Amino acid sequence: MKATIERATLLKGLSHVQSVVERRNTIPILSNVLIEASTEGSLRLMATDLDLQIDETVPAAIDQPGSTTVSAHTLFDIARKLPEGAQVELTAAEGKLKITAGRYSSSLPTLPRDDFPVIAEGDLPVTFELPAETLKQIIDKTRFAISTEETRYYLNGIFLHVADEDQPVLKAAATDGHRLARVTVARPDGAEEMPDVIVPRKCVGELRKLLDEIDGSVGVSLSGSKIRFDLGQAILTSKLIDGTFPDYTRVIPTGNDKLLKIDPKSFMEGVDRVSTIATEKTRAVKMALDRDKITLSVTSAENGAAAEEVPGDYVALPFEIGFNSRYLLDILAQIEGDMVELHLADAAAPTLIRENEKSPALYVLMPMRV
Amino acid sequence: MKATIERATLLKGLSHVQSVVERRNTIPILSNVLIEASTEGSLRLMATDLDLQIDETVPAAIDQPGSTTVSAHTLFDIARKLPEGAQVELTAAEGKLKITAGRYSSSLPTLPRDDFPVIAEGDLPVTFELPAETLKQIIDKTRFAISTEETRYYLNGIFLHVADEDQPVLKAAATDGHRLARVTVARPDGAEEMPDVIVPRKCVGELRKLLDEIDGSVGVSLSGSKIRFDLGQAILTSKLIDGTFPDYTRVIPTGNDKLLKIDPKSFMEGVDRVSTIATEKTRAVKMALDRDKITLSVTSAENGAAAEEVPGDYVALPFEIGFNSRYLLDILAQIEGDMVELHLADAAAPTLIRENEKSPALYVLMPMRV
Repeated sequence: MKATIERATLLKGLSHVQSVVERRNTIPILSNVLIEASTEGSLRLMATDLDLQIDETVPAAIDQPGSTTVSAHTLFDIARKLPEGAQVELTAAEGKLKITAGRYSSSLPTLPRDDFPVIAEGDLPVTFELPAETLKQIIDKTRFAISTEETRYYLNGIFLHVADEDQPVLKAAATDGHRLARVTVARPDGAEEMPDVIVPRKCVGELRKLLDEIDGSVGVSLSGSKIRFDLGQAILTSKLIDGTFPDYTRVIPTGNDKLLKIDPKSFMEGVDRVSTIATEKTRAVKMALDRDKITLSVTSAENGAAAEEVPGDYVALPFEIGFNSRYLLDILAQIEGDMVELHLADAAAPTLIRENEKSPALYVLMPMRV
Repeated sequence: MKATIERATLLKGLSHVQSVVERRNTIPILSNVLIEASTEGSLRLMATDLDLQIDETVPAAIDQPGSTTVSAHTLFDIARKLPEGAQVELTAAEGKLKITAGRYSSSLPTLPRDDFPVIAEGDLPVTFELPAETLKQIIDKTRFAISTEETRYYLNGIFLHVADEDQPVLKAAATDGHRLARVTVARPDGAEEMPDVIVPRKCVGELRKLLDEIDGSVGVSLSGSKIRFDLGQAILTSKLIDGTFPDYTRVIPTGNDKLLKIDPKSFMEGVDRVSTIATEKTRAVKMALDRDKITLSVTSAENGAAAEEVPGDYVALPFEIGFNSRYLLDILAQIEGDMVELHLADAAAPTLIRENEKSPALYVLMPMRV
C-alpha cells in the first residue's frame, strides 16, 4: 500500500476515528485504525470497539492499493504534530507502516488487515433520512438523562420508537429512573415499520460530535440489532442495546393540576445559587410555592442555609416540593424560550416540565423528600 | 460585623484567597477565609495553609466593624454565582455569616476569628523592590525545573541568592537533578545583605498568578525563614524551605567545546514529532550531530521508530547524545529568540543551553543513555 494525503485531511479523518478507539484495549488490534487504499482518489479509515464502528473516507492519492492497521492514537498524534500543509506519504511494507512528511519519517508496527474485526451489518431493512438539525435536537434534549448504571444496561442509551398519534411520530426517550426526557418529531418517510431500538450512549456521543461538522441530512438504516448513520464522509455503525426499554409513558403524569409558569433563566440561576451550599450527598433544593411567589431553599447541617425568591405565575394551593438540584438544572438548561411550565401534583408525585404544550420536548422529574 | 461590597470586587479578592486554601484540610479553620472589617472603606480577606498566607484588601463600605471566618470555597462559589453588579451584604452575628444580595440570602457557619492562624512574620530585615516583569521572568524561566520529589524537599522551590560578579547580581535557580534552570538579574538596591533562600513551589505559583494582574513594582521583604511579597492590594507571606540548596554552580559546564547553533522552533517541533512514539517510560530522543546536520531519532521496542533531520550550525566532531525529550522541550519552550546555543562535550556530560552569552537565563541538561 502506498498513498499520499494532505496532513489536514488525514488529521480530520483520524480525529473522528481515534475517538471511537478506547485508550486501553485487551485485544491489541482494537487500538488500531484500518487504512485501506483500494479506490482511486480516496483512503478508507476504520476503527471499532466491537460495538461501534466508524468508517471514514478521505481524499488521497493512491500510488499502490493495499491495506494495513496501525495504532490509531499514535498516527493521530503524528498527524497532529506535522506542519500545516505537509503532504504525508503512507507506505505499508514488511509488517511496518512508513510515514514520511518533509524531513520527518517514522516506521510503526502494524497488525494484519485480516485480523481487523468488521461489524457485520447484516440486513438493515428500515431506511430513512433525518435532517442533521433534528438529530442534534433529539440527542441534545435527551442524552443528559441516559442512565450510567451499568446494571440497568437497557437504560444506557436513547430509546427510539415510532407511534401513531394525531400524526405519525418518531419519539426519542432517555431516563435513569429519576428523570425522563423525551423528544417527539414527525415520523420520517421509511420509518413506518421501524422496530423499537435503544441506541447506546457511546454511539450517541460519537454521532453528536460528527453532526457538528455537517449540514443537510443523515441517512439512518437499522434492523432490530444494528443501526447505521450515514453522514457522507463518515459512516457510523453500532450494535443496539439488546434489552427492553421500560414503558416510560406510564410515568408521564397527565393529571397534574398545579401549574407554575416561570422564567427558566432566573429559575435556573436561583437554583444554582441556593444549591451552592448543598453537599454532594444531598443536592436537594426545596421549592415553596405560594401565590406568584416561589421560594427556593437549601439547608445543610454542615454548610448552613440559603434561600432565594424567584417570581413566577402560580395560583394553585400553596405547597412545598423538593428536587435534586442538578437534575433540575440539567432540564432547565434545555429550555430555549423565556417561559417554562412545571405541572405539579403534590410533594411525592412526578412533575412534568415543558416549554409549552406544543414543544417537542418534555421532561419528567421525580421529587425528593426535603 | 457588617459590610457591603460590590460582587465583582468580592469575587476578585476571593479568587486570590481561595486559591491558597487547600481543598482538603484536617484543621477545619484552614478551609476558612478570615474577613475583617476594621478600617473604614476596606475589607481584609486572609487565608493560609500554615506555610503560605495571603492578605488581600478590597474596597467595601463598613457598616459595623468586626471579623469572622467562613468557608473560602463556599463564599467564592456564592460570589461567582451572584448576578453581575450585585451589592453583597455580609453580616456576622451569632456564629453565622449572613450573605444577602437582592432576593438571595444565605447563612454560613463560622469559626471564631481568634482561632485563625496568622503567620508571624517576625523581623524581615532585607527589603527591596523588583519590577513585576523581572519577577515574572525569574519565575517563568525556572519553575519548570523545580523538583516534585518530596524527599528532596530542599529542591522543591526556587533558590534565590546574591553574588558579586562583574556587577552585583541576584540569581534564581531551580533543579530536579536532571536539569537546571538559572536566571541572573541586576541586584536590586537593598538586597546586598540578602541571605540565600529557597521559595517554595506553592508560593511561586500563587505569586505568578497575582503578577498577571499588576504592573509596576513588587516589594520583597525577607529574613532567613520568611519572605513577603507586597503587590499592593495583595500581600503574600510564605515560610521559606528550611534546607540547603546544593552548590549548583559546580554542575554548570564551562569547558564544553562542541557548539551547536540551531533554530529553537524547528528543533522543538522536530523533538516533539519524533518523540510521539516514545513510551512514558523511556522518553529518550537521540541527537546525531554531524557537520551542519542534526538527526533526531527515537526507537521504541513497542512503537517502532521515527527520525527527523533538522538544520543547524555545527562544525565540531560528529557524535551522538540522548536527552529526555520532555526536559528538552521544557527548556526550548523558554527560548524567545530565533537561535539557541547548545554547548556539548560528550554523550555522558551535562549540556549547557542558552540563547547566547548575554542572555540572563541558562539551562543545564543531563544526557540519557540511548
